[in-house]
Amino acid sequence: MNAPHMDPDEFRRAGHAVVDWIADYWATLEQRPVVSADPPGTVAAALPAAPPTVGEPVEAVLADLDAVVVPGLTHWQHPGFFGYFPANTSGPSVLGDLVSSGLGVQGMLWATSPACTELETVLLDWLAQLLDLPQRFRSSSRGGGVIQDSASSATLVATLAALHRASGGRWREVGVDRRYRAYTSAHGHSSIEKAVRIAGLGTDGVRPIEVDPVTQALRPAALRAAIEADRAAGDVPAIVVATIGTTSTTAIDPLPEIGAICAEYGIWLHVDAAYAGSAAVCPELRWSHAGLEYADSYCFDPHKWLLTGFDCDAFWVADRSELIEALTVMPEFLRNAATESGAVIDYRDWQVPLGRRFRALKLWFVLRWYGVQGLRAHIRSGVALAARFADRVRSDDRFELAAAHPFALVCFRLRADNDTNAELLARVNRTGRVHLTHTRVAGRYTLRLAVGSPQTAERHVDEAWTLLTDAAKDLLNP
Amino acid sequence: MNAPHMDPDEFRRAGHAVVDWIADYWATLEQRPVVSADPPGTVAAALPAAPPTVGEPVEAVLADLDAVVVPGLTHWQHPGFFGYFPANTSGPSVLGDLVSSGLGVQGMLWATSPACTELETVLLDWLAQLLDLPQRFRSSSRGGGVIQDSASSATLVATLAALHRASGGRWREVGVDRRYRAYTSAHGHSSIEKAVRIAGLGTDGVRPIEVDPVTQALRPAALRAAIEADRAAGDVPAIVVATIGTTSTTAIDPLPEIGAICAEYGIWLHVDAAYAGSAAVCPELRWSHAGLEYADSYCFDPHKWLLTGFDCDAFWVADRSELIEALTVMPEFLRNAATESGAVIDYRDWQVPLGRRFRALKLWFVLRWYGVQGLRAHIRSGVALAARFADRVRSDDRFELAAAHPFALVCFRLRADNDTNAELLARVNRTGRVHLTHTRVAGRYTLRLAVGSPQTAERHVDEAWTLLTDAAKDLLNP
Ligand SMILES: Cc1ncc(COP(=O)(O)O)c(C=O)c1O
Ligand SMILES: Cc1ncc(COP(=O)(O)O)c(C=O)c1O
Repeated sequence: MNAPHMDPDEFRRAGHAVVDWIADYWATLEQRPVVSADPPGTVAAALPAAPPTVGEPVEAVLADLDAVVVPGLTHWQHPGFFGYFPANTSGPSVLGDLVSSGLGVQGMLWATSPACTELETVLLDWLAQLLDLPQRFRSSSRGGGVIQDSASSATLVATLAALHRASGGRWREVGVDRRYRAYTSAHGHSSIEKAVRIAGLGTDGVRPIEVDPVTQALRPAALRAAIEADRAAGDVPAIVVATIGTTSTTAIDPLPEIGAICAEYGIWLHVDAAYAGSAAVCPELRWSHAGLEYADSYCFDPHKWLLTGFDCDAFWVADRSELIEALTVMPEFLRNAATESGAVIDYRDWQVPLGRRFRALKLWFVLRWYGVQGLRAHIRSGVALAARFADRVRSDDRFELAAAHPFALVCFRLRADNDTNAELLARVNRTGRVHLTHTRVAGRYTLRLAVGSPQTAERHVDEAWTLLTDAAKDLLNP
Repeated sequence: MNAPHMDPDEFRRAGHAVVDWIADYWATLEQRPVVSADPPGTVAAALPAAPPTVGEPVEAVLADLDAVVVPGLTHWQHPGFFGYFPANTSGPSVLGDLVSSGLGVQGMLWATSPACTELETVLLDWLAQLLDLPQRFRSSSRGGGVIQDSASSATLVATLAALHRASGGRWREVGVDRRYRAYTSAHGHSSIEKAVRIAGLGTDGVRPIEVDPVTQALRPAALRAAIEADRAAGDVPAIVVATIGTTSTTAIDPLPEIGAICAEYGIWLHVDAAYAGSAAVCPELRWSHAGLEYADSYCFDPHKWLLTGFDCDAFWVADRSELIEALTVMPEFLRNAATESGAVIDYRDWQVPLGRRFRALKLWFVLRWYGVQGLRAHIRSGVALAARFADRVRSDDRFELAAAHPFALVCFRLRADNDTNAELLARVNRTGRVHLTHTRVAGRYTLRLAVGSPQTAERHVDEAWTLLTDAAKDLLNP
């Protein structure tokens, strides 16, 4: 039986224990299988059917964490985790987020915690400098940045602002009363279709645009043709979502051409750089962002490749007033002098939910602890490890690269049929030492190896290659 | 200059320092002014214009936290914070969330971290028992629960599922092609209008229904009349959002009558108990949830009044397949055997974003550490403190109660004009000892005192009353 609430002294004691637990977890991560092999229902079956009547000590919960929860995890921070895109975190991020939890402030309005809003605005300006984003995204101009939970939500709010604009302001009151259309490459992320559906345009509202068979990037001519066809049919083109670093292969849509088309037709251009945006912290990788000056909005996920734990998406608009107009609702109980003065930002009007936790803190801890140099070193290390792996693939005749690897994702396959490649992936993952995922490129089953964990070093990438070649040997010469 | 990454030993050292920082913050919270008096821009001006080039130690960041950030906060965990509704947290919640940050797993699919999904499903079943929710919300039936970031997002996904149903399944493909309508009381939360707007129905899509002048609750007859009028005009009633505990006054909409109307017309009933849902952990307060068996979906915020830090909204549906059908999109790179087997829950299909952090951990720590008894004691203490304050109001002829106080919010005013009441609020808040907010009830300016922080005791509520009566004396006899 515990005291009515956990007092500061007990928090100090239990907090040290939890910090130690995490340090031990990280120190032993490499020895664990990356993915659990247990069948569905294993964790649920090991948990009691009801909450305890009487409170228990933190140590009891930590014991069950070890016994029940951890064996059922996929370890995203494991050095052998090469699946999807990374969702990497870091010590400084964890500590910044801990401060956020401890403060427990809620920054829906400037007035509900001024520092929560102001630190966020400053940090998004820092990030804009770090990535060398166009001037119009800075808070000193008409634009500005905000933290969203995810790139999915960023695309959604961009779509809403685009509808507001495309409707000439009617959308706010009357909703979707015309056939608005959204355009993205056939490799645009599924979150785009989801955002468009949520916004009430239906799956029909998304026009998947053909990609170039070599670069896998959107073909501007096909975009123009689709826009023209829709206009001729009386539909209203509202938004184009271009991608820097597609999920399948990190293809880069040609922003200069796409941007010119959007400008010509007056269509909102949102640029989704969820994964690859982090690369722009390195000057030598900024070519990937050429043409960004055309964008009305842009986002990337520090929670993917910039050492900041999920959830942290950085989103900028070129004209904040459009976004705010689209999303604001002002009931009496939120009225306050600061908002009415017009001198402050109320971030609730920049996002879907009302409430917001103090997410800027984790980003602040990361930027301060790593510094610009440390962040660049992290990105460069990922790119170099991917290049090292790609060299292995290139030098082995049984394998082929399936796409270019400008960042830290390598797409490759055995020169064999789809089933053999699927079996290769399954065998390698079954070892528990590494975890890779797959995609299809032009219909062909393709393996993906994405480097990103701060713990990943050459030996982990080399081990992945050894496991792959061992499995390939068995598969090709059974 | 730091090492390339923070290793487990450095994390352990710095982590203890951050835990100590939080313990000290809590221990000294009461001595701080609840709200900062600094003008807009103060925090931003104290921060450098660019991120550091070279990394700095955690201690440097903690020093700036003290010097720059904390003075600019509104302290939501302060025992004198009586504003809005509470966003209370607790030691166990902070520790559970710390484990979540440290693990850094991403639970978009069952396969991407089975324990993340399974613990959440079990915990939502625990919560359903704790609140004695209808059987059909349990995962063992056709329904089930999920953690959303907020009640705003819960209302949004409920609206999307409702549109899917109201359209007979067309909405997924064609979007909003008819005038769908949503109904809520004139005191429904602003997040309902926002959700409806996001879903593409426009502000016109929300029909605010008249409330009873005494109870401030939705009038069923007015709801029926609005539905009939819309149907006659060819509009399509899609969803009714009823509230248990409105934001202004904690009014309780009459669910039995509303539910019968929804059943009659085949309209989705979503019940928003964002704040007051927590009350249902106490059997003696469950009368507030009468009629919930009619609901298609229901949500409440453990991040408001159940000691779990923002963000944590618990959301249930009676038929999970409707929600999943509305929201699912399946690209190749997310295909996996577990999903295809149909034996698992993929929570990405229950929410707006794709990615998800392991939020169930903080809830688990809270339910285990407090136990059912501890949670009930917390709610009862809030209700008793509010009743104590209401007694003071009732016994002073200069004041009046503006509404009933079934939970831990007291709405009251001076028997004086609106300006005098606004000035009363401003004066009391200027002391820095307490923070209250306001609303309007039937056009009249009304003060709100919401109890909720675990640190709030009788002396804090009594101090609020003393400050109010002192200020009232000055105002009434200048
Ligand atoms: C290009 C791209 N966009 C969007 C997303 C979705 O990211 P989030 O989980 O932040 O919504 C991803 C995730 O992998 C992505 O690769
Ligand atoms: C009745 C009601 N619904 C919804 C909300 C919005 O809550 P959230 O911040 O979780 O979206 C509130 C917030 O106070 C509320 O009182």
